[in-house]
Amino acid sequence: MPSPIITFTSDFGHEDWFVGVVHGVLYDLCPNARVVDLSHAVEPGDIERAAFTLEAACPDFPVGTVHLAVVDPGVGTKRRALAVHSRGQLFVAPDNGILEHALADPDAEIRSLTESRFFRLPVSRTFHGRDVFAPVAAHLACGVSLESMGPRVIDPVRLVRTPICWVDGRLEGRVMLVDRFGNALTSLTTEAIGSAFPGISESLLEVLLGGRRIRGIARSYGDAPIGTLVAIIGSSGRLEIAQVGGHAAQRFGFGQGDAVSIQAVR
Amino acid sequence: MPSPIITFTSDFGHEDWFVGVVHGVLYDLCPNARVVDLSHAVEPGDIERAAFTLEAACPDFPVGTVHLAVVDPGVGTKRRALAVHSRGQLFVAPDNGILEHALADPDAEIRSLTESRFFRLPVSRTFHGRDVFAPVAAHLACGVSLESMGPRVIDPVRLVRTPICWVDGRLEGRVMLVDRFGNALTSLTTEAIGSAFPGISESLLEVLLGGRRIRGIARSYGDAPIGTLVAIIGSSGRLEIAQVGGHAAQRFGFGQGDAVSIQAVR
Amino acid sequence: MPSPIITFTSDFGHEDWFVGVVHGVLYDLCPNARVVDLSHAVEPGDIERAAFTLEAACPDFPVGTVHLAVVDPGVGTKRRALAVHSRGQLFVAPDNGILEHALADPDAEIRSLTESRFFRLPVSRTFHGRDVFAPVAAHLACGVSLESMGPRVIDPVRLVRTPICWVDGRLEGRVMLVDRFGNALTSLTTEAIGSAFPGISESLLEVLLGGRRIRGIARSYGDAPIGTLVAIIGSSGRLEIAQVGGHAAQRFGFGQGDAVSIQAVR
Repeated sequence: MPSPIITFTSDFGHEDWFVGVVHGVLYDLCPNARVVDLSHAVEPGDIERAAFTLEAACPDFPVGTVHLAVVDPGVGTKRRALAVHSRGQLFVAPDNGILEHALADPDAEIRSLTESRFFRLPVSRTFHGRDVFAPVAAHLACGVSLESMGPRVIDPVRLVRTPICWVDGRLEGRVMLVDRFGNALTSLTTEAIGSAFPGISESLLEVLLGGRRIRGIARSYGDAPIGTLVAIIGSSGRLEIAQVGGHAAQRFGFGQGDAVSIQAVR
Repeated sequence: MPSPIITFTSDFGHEDWFVGVVHGVLYDLCPNARVVDLSHAVEPGDIERAAFTLEAACPDFPVGTVHLAVVDPGVGTKRRALAVHSRGQLFVAPDNGILEHALADPDAEIRSLTESRFFRLPVSRTFHGRDVFAPVAAHLACGVSLESMGPRVIDPVRLVRTPICWVDGRLEGRVMLVDRFGNALTSLTTEAIGSAFPGISESLLEVLLGGRRIRGIARSYGDAPIGTLVAIIGSSGRLEIAQVGGHAAQRFGFGQGDAVSIQAVR
Repeated sequence: MPSPIITFTSDFGHEDWFVGVVHGVLYDLCPNARVVDLSHAVEPGDIERAAFTLEAACPDFPVGTVHLAVVDPGVGTKRRALAVHSRGQLFVAPDNGILEHALADPDAEIRSLTESRFFRLPVSRTFHGRDVFAPVAAHLACGVSLESMGPRVIDPVRLVRTPICWVDGRLEGRVMLVDRFGNALTSLTTEAIGSAFPGISESLLEVLLGGRRIRGIARSYGDAPIGTLVAIIGSSGRLEIAQVGGHAAQRFGFGQGDAVSIQAVR
């Protein structure tokens, strides 16, 4: 019997019992599931943070994983509830942009959750994480088909993101998130950098962030002395700016949304 | 083979290894269990908070769930250790009021944990969560009978709570807890409100809290503009006071123990 | 089919998705495992804290448990990665001292992780928790032999710790950690105290910490009135200094590294 992985991301925090109650619903309906918390420390209503969490983490999970994501300021309104099949994985979340990464796949199959027989009834006014999204995620993990959840959706809510672009000969992206270690994760992916600078050695690339210039892409945090600012390809395949042994964002004042750019030098 | 759910609530926090050690004992003795954390952020010794956490969360779990709760300032003293069967679920905790919700069931069966063969020996002086409560919870989850745990108890420690009462034509309760979103959860349950105001439309009810008047019970947070204070029936079936898109308790100065009342208006 | 326990300790925090991704790798490679988090609140790079967490928690887990520990400031450098068999359990971690407790066992078998067929490929530059340590821990939990992981190591990195010693007729140790309750856990173990003061009643021992004298070893926190400073044998078998109903470290200014001593009095 398979042991499906269900990941869970929310803005519920750990002070209350909301995360636990969702786990209970998942285990009740799909006893063989393995529930994995990605983060519940997303600030209340911070859809962008949750969306980036999914974008960074999902590729690390196996095919067939079900990702449950509940940051849902519109709970109880007419906002739709979605289930999505994208890149071999399933996603369940409110239709508010949190699934941006899944939806960016042109082959994504998107369904609206209209079949209340898969819900926990009666559905409360304030906690669709427990009553709608978790039950659907559990049923999907246990093999219920995506098609049975409701009709196709062709106009899901998307996040507007600043695209990577060329500015004065530099490829410019944004700081997407500062992680716990103070590293600034950017929108400049390995693929984007590779396409922009084909065949160019990493040592000939220069990164600019907040007036700081960083020469070369480091092979590890340990490549440079403690305190040095380095650019490195991080674990989710994107350019990160880090301070060796320190907290780059605090030390240098970097933050989400800052422009970061890269160019070839000689 | 069944996969019993064991929930776990404590004041252990997540800085140390105490929660993990309890998980280890549970999985060691009942390998098929699914352990679900409700909250470990209860302030040290805050029995009321833990009791309310159980009251709010337990009804969401299936019949047969075992609830382990360890807020235990009296560890090592003569305070009793209890296992309780109540409303189809099992509860294991120190006898200090934390199980108020389970004990409020007149049909609850209450046992004192005196059978040390179900303990982890030798029992330490300071960590009965690991040595007494977790092993008993695991044995119960794996099918050991409640009766075998020890003799019946007829005088468990109960929490004294301010009852719901009529004051000047208003049904008055208390704020029981402020959750992570700043919502004030009250002691006014759907049942209490329904009995007090039979057949009266929710739009004709008025809630008073901290000098603020809220007209009508909202159907969702999205019923009113951002910033509005709303009264709503929350996910645990009780009246909640929330600010749309904001933190009601911080914004309006609400806190645990505040009086909240409701009346019919025309 | 066995259900191996894999514990996980790190400095990853809970804000980001790093802990969840590691859980995903463990469940993917060893679906029957039970993953237990010890702590992820270790400050970034605080190897000593993580090492003590393992030392205190591991004896509570059953034989065969696999302990995964990732505090890894040297990720991507030439520091080795280790798997260790010690006292019936397995340990997987970077070679930086975090496994001090396991390595203190003279019979420990220590292997360097050189067999990349057990890794998640390609190995990233910054996240060997996901790509090296978690996969190896999962394979060990699922029965792959320690020998197959790589060659023996005879010179692992060890932590230098202040030894317990006699000073002016007092047995002197150190505060190793202040826990969430404010209790000061010391390096003075039950064994060390028993050997130093054979046959002497606990009531005739006197503990000194930060200029405070505590007479006798308490049998429980409840032995003395609220606010009293007590010495007690804690749950990991070492002397702890606690304030009944309070936070000893904050109230009396105790901290990690403080000298604590014990002597016999009459």
